[in-house]
Amino acid sequence: MKIIQEAAELQKLALSYKRTGKTIALVPTMGYLHAGHASLIDIARQRADVVIVSIFVNPTQFGPNEDLDKYPRDFEHDRELCAAHGADIIYAPTPGGMYAADASVEIVENHLSKVLCGKTRPIHFKGVCTVVAKLFNLTLPDVAVFGEKDAQQLLIIRRMVRDLNFPVEIVAAPLVRQEDGLALSSRNRYLSCDEKARALVLSRALFAARKAIEANGIEAVDGVIEAMKVEITNAGGRIDYVEARDTANLDAPTAATKEILLALAVYFGTTRLIDNQIIGLN
Amino acid sequence: MKIIQEAAELQKLALSYKRTGKTIALVPTMGYLHAGHASLIDIARQRADVVIVSIFVNPTQFGPNEDLDKYPRDFEHDRELCAAHGADIIYAPTPGGMYAADASVEIVENHLSKVLCGKTRPIHFKGVCTVVAKLFNLTLPDVAVFGEKDAQQLLIIRRMVRDLNFPVEIVAAPLVRQEDGLALSSRNRYLSCDEKARALVLSRALFAARKAIEANGIEAVDGVIEAMKVEITNAGGRIDYVEARDTANLDAPTAATKEILLALAVYFGTTRLIDNQIIGLN
Repeated sequence: MKIIQEAAELQKLALSYKRTGKTIALVPTMGYLHAGHASLIDIARQRADVVIVSIFVNPTQFGPNEDLDKYPRDFEHDRELCAAHGADIIYAPTPGGMYAADASVEIVENHLSKVLCGKTRPIHFKGVCTVVAKLFNLTLPDVAVFGEKDAQQLLIIRRMVRDLNFPVEIVAAPLVRQEDGLALSSRNRYLSCDEKARALVLSRALFAARKAIEANGIEAVDGVIEAMKVEITNAGGRIDYVEARDTANLDAPTAATKEILLALAVYFGTTRLIDNQIIGLN
Repeated sequence: MKIIQEAAELQKLALSYKRTGKTIALVPTMGYLHAGHASLIDIARQRADVVIVSIFVNPTQFGPNEDLDKYPRDFEHDRELCAAHGADIIYAPTPGGMYAADASVEIVENHLSKVLCGKTRPIHFKGVCTVVAKLFNLTLPDVAVFGEKDAQQLLIIRRMVRDLNFPVEIVAAPLVRQEDGLALSSRNRYLSCDEKARALVLSRALFAARKAIEANGIEAVDGVIEAMKVEITNAGGRIDYVEARDTANLDAPTAATKEILLALAVYFGTTRLIDNQIIGLN
């Protein structure tokens, strides 16, 4: 397994793979890898000749009062996990290697990014789109694997690929949970023991909501969301949002909606957790 | 020579070239091709195995009161010119084939695009960057050729390639003029005989300015620009801008400036013409 820090070196290598007909899969991450990331690497491994994992805590997707500085890092652990899951290359650039001091070009998504996480994190998806486009251009993947945990991000990346015609197939990997239901996240390490126990309300509320919506259809959504909010608040969560959206456009669901994204962002202490369910309607 | 209208077909073909080690050169145009465009195709022909010319009057780079609807088109002539200069593929999409009805992703440049043409055409370079990125992703070029006539566009495209890490070498092609000095432009066909004669003031003023700045250095710039404005106005031109800018960042030139872009946009009647000189300082 190769570890590469320089953008030019990575791109040259990717081009050489491309020109000799090798297929490439990219798994973009911010490091501090867990079993969720491992599942992405496993999928990538099945889909291409060369698997590249990028590890980069991207400063441009963090707002001024967010957790950029304290975001957890453990490169040695990440290296071992990547090797164990058969990655061929880790790309681990420095911020200075990714962004010129006078960088002035950004990718903006103007619809899907206005709601849910985009409302409280207004610059977040601009940073995500821009860094993912850069990673696509540096690694030239045939396939890129993203987790359904970041459901809105996944939809926005698919939209970017469509609207900018990136020659990349986006593969969605299912969210991975602990046995007790908590969605895996690098940010779980911020939680105290007590907060972790309280945070189990999120998956519990989502699973119950899924059941109710599957049984009673779109009509049930408003009541279900109100009930979730009460349950989460009672468990000590501070709600950023709990919302149902049409996965086609992230607008409010209508009678025509075929699939709902039921998504939430909730604080326990100072830690903001996200979780979701994607629910097909018939 | 192949003529392709479908994005998916073009991208598939480009990928197959890429995977078999063939190099690709792209010449993006809005059609109504003239000798300036031909020179770009000639350069592309020397630089790659496969030459793709795109012909697309891109609606997103025209403002609401600009000349999108009357922009001249002559596909038969363009086809002949491309064939005569050895192009392998013409990509001629329809607007509907380029943009989904709910397209929501754009590429924005935040510094170089704020001055010169970007001031009077505020959405222009957003449209240019977005369509060029799309064309890069559809044609996967090793090399793309742009004319120095659109000097600001060239600098912005270079910046986009740098900031988004596109694996594309940008080649600048010298501006091509008529014998009388008028810069070739598809928009010259809008000019009446009288306007065409008056418009010769642009190159005349630029050549004189170049001489003065080469002789007297940065100190001469302000006076030279004032003189140009008087001369152009006296010839019946309505000035949008006549400006000197540092080519490194399009800021106002300073004592440290190594190269000046002396650029202008001037109306004759309702037709807006641009022209420029790039002047090295020592």
